[in-house]
Amino acid sequence: MNNKAITPRDQDFAKWYTDVVRAAQLADYSSVKGCMVIEPNGYAIWEKMQSILDKKFKELGHTNVCMPVLIPETLLKKEGELVEGFAPEVAWITHGGSKLLEERLCFRPTSETMFSDYYSTHIRSYKDLPKLYNQWCNVIRWEKETRPFLRSREFLWQEGHTIHATQDEAEKETKQMMDVYKWFHHEVLAIPSITGLKTEKEKFAGAEYTLTNEALMYNGVALQSGTSHYFGQKFAKAYDIKFANVDNKLEYVYQTSWGTTTRMIGGLIMVHSDDFGLVLPPKIAPKQVVIIPIGDDEKVLKLCNKFKEQLSKADITCYIDNSDKSPGFKFAEAEVNGIPVRIEVGLRDLENNTITVVRRDTREKLTTQSNMDIVAYVSVLLDTIQREMYERAKQRRDELTFEAHDLKDIEDILNNQAGFIHGMWCGDQACETKIKEIKGCKSRCILEDENNIDDKCVCCGRQAKYHVLWGIQY
Amino acid sequence: MNNKAITPRDQDFAKWYTDVVRAAQLADYSSVKGCMVIEPNGYAIWEKMQSILDKKFKELGHTNVCMPVLIPETLLKKEGELVEGFAPEVAWITHGGSKLLEERLCFRPTSETMFSDYYSTHIRSYKDLPKLYNQWCNVIRWEKETRPFLRSREFLWQEGHTIHATQDEAEKETKQMMDVYKWFHHEVLAIPSITGLKTEKEKFAGAEYTLTNEALMYNGVALQSGTSHYFGQKFAKAYDIKFANVDNKLEYVYQTSWGTTTRMIGGLIMVHSDDFGLVLPPKIAPKQVVIIPIGDDEKVLKLCNKFKEQLSKADITCYIDNSDKSPGFKFAEAEVNGIPVRIEVGLRDLENNTITVVRRDTREKLTTQSNMDIVAYVSVLLDTIQREMYERAKQRRDELTFEAHDLKDIEDILNNQAGFIHGMWCGDQACETKIKEIKGCKSRCILEDENNIDDKCVCCGRQAKYHVLWGIQY
Repeated sequence: MNNKAITPRDQDFAKWYTDVVRAAQLADYSSVKGCMVIEPNGYAIWEKMQSILDKKFKELGHTNVCMPVLIPETLLKKEGELVEGFAPEVAWITHGGSKLLEERLCFRPTSETMFSDYYSTHIRSYKDLPKLYNQWCNVIRWEKETRPFLRSREFLWQEGHTIHATQDEAEKETKQMMDVYKWFHHEVLAIPSITGLKTEKEKFAGAEYTLTNEALMYNGVALQSGTSHYFGQKFAKAYDIKFANVDNKLEYVYQTSWGTTTRMIGGLIMVHSDDFGLVLPPKIAPKQVVIIPIGDDEKVLKLCNKFKEQLSKADITCYIDNSDKSPGFKFAEAEVNGIPVRIEVGLRDLENNTITVVRRDTREKLTTQSNMDIVAYVSVLLDTIQREMYERAKQRRDELTFEAHDLKDIEDILNNQAGFIHGMWCGDQACETKIKEIKGCKSRCILEDENNIDDKCVCCGRQAKYHVLWGIQY
Repeated sequence: MNNKAITPRDQDFAKWYTDVVRAAQLADYSSVKGCMVIEPNGYAIWEKMQSILDKKFKELGHTNVCMPVLIPETLLKKEGELVEGFAPEVAWITHGGSKLLEERLCFRPTSETMFSDYYSTHIRSYKDLPKLYNQWCNVIRWEKETRPFLRSREFLWQEGHTIHATQDEAEKETKQMMDVYKWFHHEVLAIPSITGLKTEKEKFAGAEYTLTNEALMYNGVALQSGTSHYFGQKFAKAYDIKFANVDNKLEYVYQTSWGTTTRMIGGLIMVHSDDFGLVLPPKIAPKQVVIIPIGDDEKVLKLCNKFKEQLSKADITCYIDNSDKSPGFKFAEAEVNGIPVRIEVGLRDLENNTITVVRRDTREKLTTQSNMDIVAYVSVLLDTIQREMYERAKQRRDELTFEAHDLKDIEDILNNQAGFIHGMWCGDQACETKIKEIKGCKSRCILEDENNIDDKCVCCGRQAKYHVLWGIQY
């Protein structure tokens, strides 16, 4: 723990990011190129993400399963677009023990294949539908450039895979799960993400269409944070997933998949953290409150214990730092680790019937009565922090949101500052490709409910069809 | 769901087992040879196992992390014994995308290597110790013969890996975690397992010693269900894990590891289930109570809803089966799925102010007042079922526990019935090898606190040193 080692965010954003990851002990590089170790502080965030999302998935009728991690090459190849999309980044297992395998197996990059294969032998009638399965697991994509949480060869995720008797139901599921991701970002992660439709070029290989959740980082770079795919009957036809409908006629099922990953931890950091380390919204912080006794006077320790007991009972996660480090060291440690609220209890303050409470997000010091209702006080404070973090993130996002009417606008904007760029589009992939030449600027998503800002394409000037959000991405 | 398809247990135990796995929809074979799909009913049991064990691990100060799933060959080879032990059953990744890797990577069969590598660069001083890490993940071992849950190429597990400043502390950890596994089996799974020390021949590759938890299946075959290893400084020396002690002198750490797997689900089935399907102890049952309305009379449905509400509030997991299947079908389904308590509410019974409650373990039908305190009634019943399931399992274990004084005793016992066999041992591996020739009978563990039953070795007749539990294993 050494927050002196954190490069200022405004000086070098990329270095700042990896410094925060290291200083808050979230993750570290490993001896395996491109793979990270998720350390206790980072994994605790993932566990909290899992518990909140998993509860929501189950409330919506989903159940968890576990499909094999290995996929035979012939099975993978059944759906052509999927293979093409993933072939360059698949890891191949060729040997079991000292024996060459008859057929090589890939480490799942995603599991449409395995779920489709399973469903094809387990569905007979409309009575078996829908199947609303999800799994929490690891996947591998053989990325060339990697960065902790944002892009690593192995990462953790959840992948939901559902099949339905009707198109309507499957499309509703696709949308519903995107709404869950949006809710999770706005309400829990305090990230004002924007959702919409991916273009044909950017959609998932094999999908009819892809909905995406796009977050904007502090530096104006976009991070795709959750996607939900509607497959129609594509996989059903490739893997022969049929059911007898109410009229006892065989039909192909309608399918969806949707996923979020440990990458969201990277998003959390890049939206909220600062030069002093990690800053976490209270709803996702594994530890919400730290209580630090200054000195070891009995009165001090007694009050600390009382606070801890009362807060714990109210389901506020808190701990007392009674290690033998100095108070200053403990303050800095709690700060770099992003504990939302720090309560300092010292003898001198107690003599004046006060304690000090420090907000991590604003670093504001509050002096308050030592005999107040600690649960009420902290509850309000945590809510305030959560709300204000969202508002600050939204303000930052809005500051970094621009409008472009032609290519020069995009160039001017991106020469100055990355951000979300609103711009109309004719729908021609050639225009998308041309825009990408400007610093790799890509369509983030098509915004469906927004007003048009122009009637001509930002690139070619022809009639515009879509209101698109553009931006540079991680 | 078709419990007619279950082969009687006494007729063909192996077939009965796989029939129960299929009928209760716990797992199924997949298109990947030797790998299983864990289906919703099976995965829910694993989730409950995880939540109970994880809570206990955390109470004891452990935290979860995630190490990379891939291990470079050179790193794996640093600890010679470990490699030798695992080399025949490791899966090798040789290609990333279309490119041959410079060094091949193995899919973790266990993660001592990765934890040791991580610890070696993250430990400086005794102040950094102990490190009490655990991870929940998948591993691969390239088994030749596989069976759902008991032995499959991929399985799920938890692996704890801890390092300590002193031998004493590490040995205490090794024992403590074995005590956790024993507690979990006795108190939660209702399995009267026996714990002890593995012989040199049977211990984990690379360990100084291994403690093991041995369960006895209904057919008298033993199932190793959780092991805890003390490594001393073996890995520390191979991977250079050093720390400065209080005198500022460099020392190697003392290390442990301990694990349990999805195999425990197989143990649960083979200890408790019957010809009608799965039987689950209430404490591990994902759904403890099913409420089945007979008919759709409003009074009936109202009482069902009231029961559900009251039981749920008391943290008893229950659901109402209001599908459009017939009551008889619902009864059979609840039975095959092992729901511990079934409540049947019918109009005719209600007119007499009664309801029917059925225990899954004994299949006993109880008629009781419809206006009783349902929470109190069900709580007592669940406790009774839990206790009696343990007692029946213990009685069965004791019936299948034998004493042997010479090789002929072992032969006679095993020609008649598999089981736990108490027999003294001189400590010579030649005797172990010779005993194994009798139907593959192996030492399960050395019993440390038991009285000796003889003073001579069951095999060679020389002076005995150890009281050993022998048996055939899965």
